[in-house]
Amino acid sequence: MRSALAEESRVHRPDSFATWFAAARERSGLRVDRVRLDGLRDWDRDPRTGTLRHRSGGFFTIGGLDVRFPSGPVPHWQQPIIHQPEIGILGLLAREFDGVLHFLMQAKVEPGNRNHLQLSPTVQATRSNYLRLHQGRAVPYLEYFQDRSRHQVMADVLQSEQGAWFFRKRNRNIVLEVTEDIAVGEDFRWMTLGQIYRQLAAEDIVNMDTRTALSCLPLTGGDTDGAPESGDGFRDALVRSCAGEPGGAHSMNDLLSWITEHRAQGDLTTGPVPLNGLSDWHSSPERISHASGRFFSVIGVNVSAGTREVGGWAQPMVEPHGTGLIAVLVKEIDGVLHVLMQAGAEPGYVDGVELSPTVQCVPESYEVLPGAARPRYLDDMLSAPADRIRFSCLLSEEGGRFHHALNRYLVVEAEGDAGALEDRDHRWLTLHQLGALLRHSHYLNVQARSLVACLHSLLAPRPR
Amino acid sequence: MRSALAEESRVHRPDSFATWFAAARERSGLRVDRVRLDGLRDWDRDPRTGTLRHRSGGFFTIGGLDVRFPSGPVPHWQQPIIHQPEIGILGLLAREFDGVLHFLMQAKVEPGNRNHLQLSPTVQATRSNYLRLHQGRAVPYLEYFQDRSRHQVMADVLQSEQGAWFFRKRNRNIVLEVTEDIAVGEDFRWMTLGQIYRQLAAEDIVNMDTRTALSCLPLTGGDTDGAPESGDGFRDALVRSCAGEPGGAHSMNDLLSWITEHRAQGDLTTGPVPLNGLSDWHSSPERISHASGRFFSVIGVNVSAGTREVGGWAQPMVEPHGTGLIAVLVKEIDGVLHVLMQAGAEPGYVDGVELSPTVQCVPESYEVLPGAARPRYLDDMLSAPADRIRFSCLLSEEGGRFHHALNRYLVVEAEGDAGALEDRDHRWLTLHQLGALLRHSHYLNVQARSLVACLHSLLAPRPR
Repeated sequence: MRSALAEESRVHRPDSFATWFAAARERSGLRVDRVRLDGLRDWDRDPRTGTLRHRSGGFFTIGGLDVRFPSGPVPHWQQPIIHQPEIGILGLLAREFDGVLHFLMQAKVEPGNRNHLQLSPTVQATRSNYLRLHQGRAVPYLEYFQDRSRHQVMADVLQSEQGAWFFRKRNRNIVLEVTEDIAVGEDFRWMTLGQIYRQLAAEDIVNMDTRTALSCLPLTGGDTDGAPESGDGFRDALVRSCAGEPGGAHSMNDLLSWITEHRAQGDLTTGPVPLNGLSDWHSSPERISHASGRFFSVIGVNVSAGTREVGGWAQPMVEPHGTGLIAVLVKEIDGVLHVLMQAGAEPGYVDGVELSPTVQCVPESYEVLPGAARPRYLDDMLSAPADRIRFSCLLSEEGGRFHHALNRYLVVEAEGDAGALEDRDHRWLTLHQLGALLRHSHYLNVQARSLVACLHSLLAPRPR
Repeated sequence: MRSALAEESRVHRPDSFATWFAAARERSGLRVDRVRLDGLRDWDRDPRTGTLRHRSGGFFTIGGLDVRFPSGPVPHWQQPIIHQPEIGILGLLAREFDGVLHFLMQAKVEPGNRNHLQLSPTVQATRSNYLRLHQGRAVPYLEYFQDRSRHQVMADVLQSEQGAWFFRKRNRNIVLEVTEDIAVGEDFRWMTLGQIYRQLAAEDIVNMDTRTALSCLPLTGGDTDGAPESGDGFRDALVRSCAGEPGGAHSMNDLLSWITEHRAQGDLTTGPVPLNGLSDWHSSPERISHASGRFFSVIGVNVSAGTREVGGWAQPMVEPHGTGLIAVLVKEIDGVLHVLMQAGAEPGYVDGVELSPTVQCVPESYEVLPGAARPRYLDDMLSAPADRIRFSCLLSEEGGRFHHALNRYLVVEAEGDAGALEDRDHRWLTLHQLGALLRHSHYLNVQARSLVACLHSLLAPRPR
C-alpha cells in the first residue's frame, strides 16, 4: 500500500521515466512488416488440416475449433484458435528501498503493439524463449524465478489468457521479493507501484503482462494505515474495498457457490476441427478471415529487432477487427466500493467459467450477431457521462500474439439500486474478494485482471 | 466442532443405527450379477472405435486414452478411461438440533459395493439420474440443492474423482444448512458428525461420496472452545491443526507456489485413442483387461434392485485388481499436527496436478512396473508398527462405477526429522491449510479428501 501511494522512487536516477523510455525506444529499432500468411519463414501449414506450426515444433500453433454453446446467444460456431500448451513466466522482482517496495520494470518491444515498446514485467518469457529454442540471447533475471529459495514469494499462480483466442493457455504470474542488490540493465528500471500506476493512466504504455502480474499482488498493509481517510469519498471506499473490511454485499461462500453453479450448469463444449475447413471462414494466401469481415483475422508478419533475443523472425498473429470495450460498473455499498463482475464461458477456458468485467466486447461485432448477444450494460457504458467515469484508457492486449489489439478500459460509477443491477450472471464483489480469488487459477479472466490493476491505480492520489 | 464431538444425536429415534441400517439392507434387495461385456442391455460398442456407450446417450462412456509422461517412471502407456462429462451432485443437508449440527444421511445401495448398502449423503445423483433419463423415481431432497436461496451454503465446490479411471470428472460437493422441518424418509437419518465418524472407523460403511462431501465442510468453531485440551497430545495437536493456529511448517504462499511449480513443469499429456486398439490391453466378449493381469478390468454387470430409482439395469464397471493402500504420514510440528501431502499428476485431472496422500497405490501393481515407480514411503507404511497407526480402515471407492474397489486407508505417525521426509514432491500441511484449499477445485484428489475426513474423525473421543 505504501508503494501504491509513492509517486517518487527512492532510487535516485538522473533520467526521468520519459527520457529513459524514449532512449529504450531509440535502441530497440523494431521493424514489423505485414506479409502473406503462406510462405511465412520457418512456418508450415499442415497439408491435411491447415494447422499453422513452427518448424522447431515449439512456440505455438493455430488450428480450428468447433464450439457448441446451446444456452448461449450463438449456439454453434467455428473459429481459428491459438494452441500454446507451454506455460510462460510473467515475473516481477520486488525490492524494498527506504521502506517502500519497488518493482523492476522493463522497456520491452513486442511486434503486435502499435507503438512497439511498452512497460513490461522483469521477465516475460515463454518456455520456448527461455529454453532458447531460437538460439537467441539468454533472458535476463530468469534465474531468480527458477531458483526461488533465497527469495520471498509474494504471488505465484497460473492465470488464463484470452479465452476467445487461446485454447487453455495459462501463464505463470510470479512476484518475488528479493533483499540482495541487483545489477540493473539499461532497459530496466526500479519503480514504485505509484509510478507504474501513473503510467497506467497514459495511453498504451503499461503492457498486459504487467497488468496481470500486478493484479495478482495482494495489496496488504490493508490496515489502511498507509492510506488515511482522504475526504475523497470514492477513494476512501476504494481503500476499504482493498483492505477487506467487513461489508461485502455477498459472503465468500455465496460467491464461490455462484461460480460453482455456473460451472455445473455450463454447456459450452469444444472440439478440434481442421483450420482449412472452418465454416464461415475464408483462407487466402494473405490471411484467414471471417466471412462477415468481423471478429478477427489470422495474418503474417516479418519482424526485425535490435534488443530482442534474436535478430529477426516471422510469425502469424491474430488481428482483431475493431477496438474493444472492457468496462466495469463500480458502486459504493455500505461505504465499501464494489465491482460488478460477470460469470461467463469462453471456448478457451480450462475450467468452463471465469469472472469477466461487467462488459467485455467489440461493439461492432454485434452488427452481425443476434440481438440477444448484445451485453445488457453495453449502452450504459457507451453513454456514461464524464462525471461517472473514474478511469478510461486505451490499452493493448499481449503484443506477442495479437496485432494492434486495442481495448478501451473503463471504470464507470453505477447509478441506481445496486441489487437491481445484479442478475443470474452478475454479482457485486469487493477488491479484497477479487484479491482472494486471484491467489488461485481460473477465477478472473485476463481482462478482469487488467481492470483490477486499473482499479488499484486509483489508490494513488492524482490530480483529476 | 461441537457436532464432531457429539456422539449422541439430539433427535430421538427408537431404533439404533445398526437396527435402522439392517432394516434398510433388508428392504433394498439388491442383486448384482456379472455378465459378458458384449451384449450388455442398452449398451453399444462403437463398431469403429469400440467405445462403450448407453443407448440414451447419457450416463457415461468408456473409451481409450493414450498417456505420455516423459518425466514419470512410465513415460508412455494406454488405458481404458471413463468419460462422464456431466457434473453430479453430492449434497448434504445439515440442520441444528439442540445447538448441534446434524446431517441427513442416507442408507443407499450401489452395485459396486461388496456389501451393497453404505452410508451416503442426502443426495447423490448424476445429472442423468436427476433428469430421470431412465424414467425412474424422483431423487428425494434434490429440490433443496436446486433452489438454495432459503438456505445457508456451508460448502459448494466442484471436486475431481479418480484421475486414473475418470477423464476430467468432477462432482459438485454441497453442504447446505436448513432451518425448516424436513420429513425424514425411512432410508434417511439425522446424525451428528461424531456419529458419522464412529461409523467411518467401521469397515466399509461410510461411502466415498459421504467422505468427500464431509471433507469440504470447514470445521469451524475453530477457536477450540468445543474441544478443550484433553491431555491426549495427539488429539490436542489435531485440534490445533484444524483450528488454524499459527505454526504451519510452510506459509500458504509457499505452498501455492510449490503447487504452481509442479503444474508449470508438468509434462503429462493425453489424447483419445480407440478402445479396441489399446496397446497391452485385451478385449474379449467378457471383459477388457491388461496383458499383465494387473491394474483393472472393464467388466459388465446386471443389477436388479428394490429401492433404487429404477427396477433393474445393466452397466459396465471398472474392477481394480488388488486392494489399494491410501496412506498419510502425520507428525506434530511445533505442537500442530501436519500431514505429508504429495503433488502429482494423473491422466484424468483437469489441471494437471493435485495433492494426493503420502502414498496412494495398489502394491501388487509394482510387480510389473519399473522399480523407480515404487513410492518412496510405501515400505514404511506397510511395516508401520501398531502403535504408530492412528487410523486404519478398509473403505470402498464409488460403487456406481467401480466394482469392489477397496482400499486400506491409513494414518501413520512419522518418526524422525520432519524436514528429511520432504522432497520435491512432498510437503507438510496442516488440516487448516488443507481446509482452505478444499474451498476450491483441483487441489485435493478424492483419496486425499477421504483421508481428510478420516483425520477429522479422530477428533471424536473414542476408546482406543
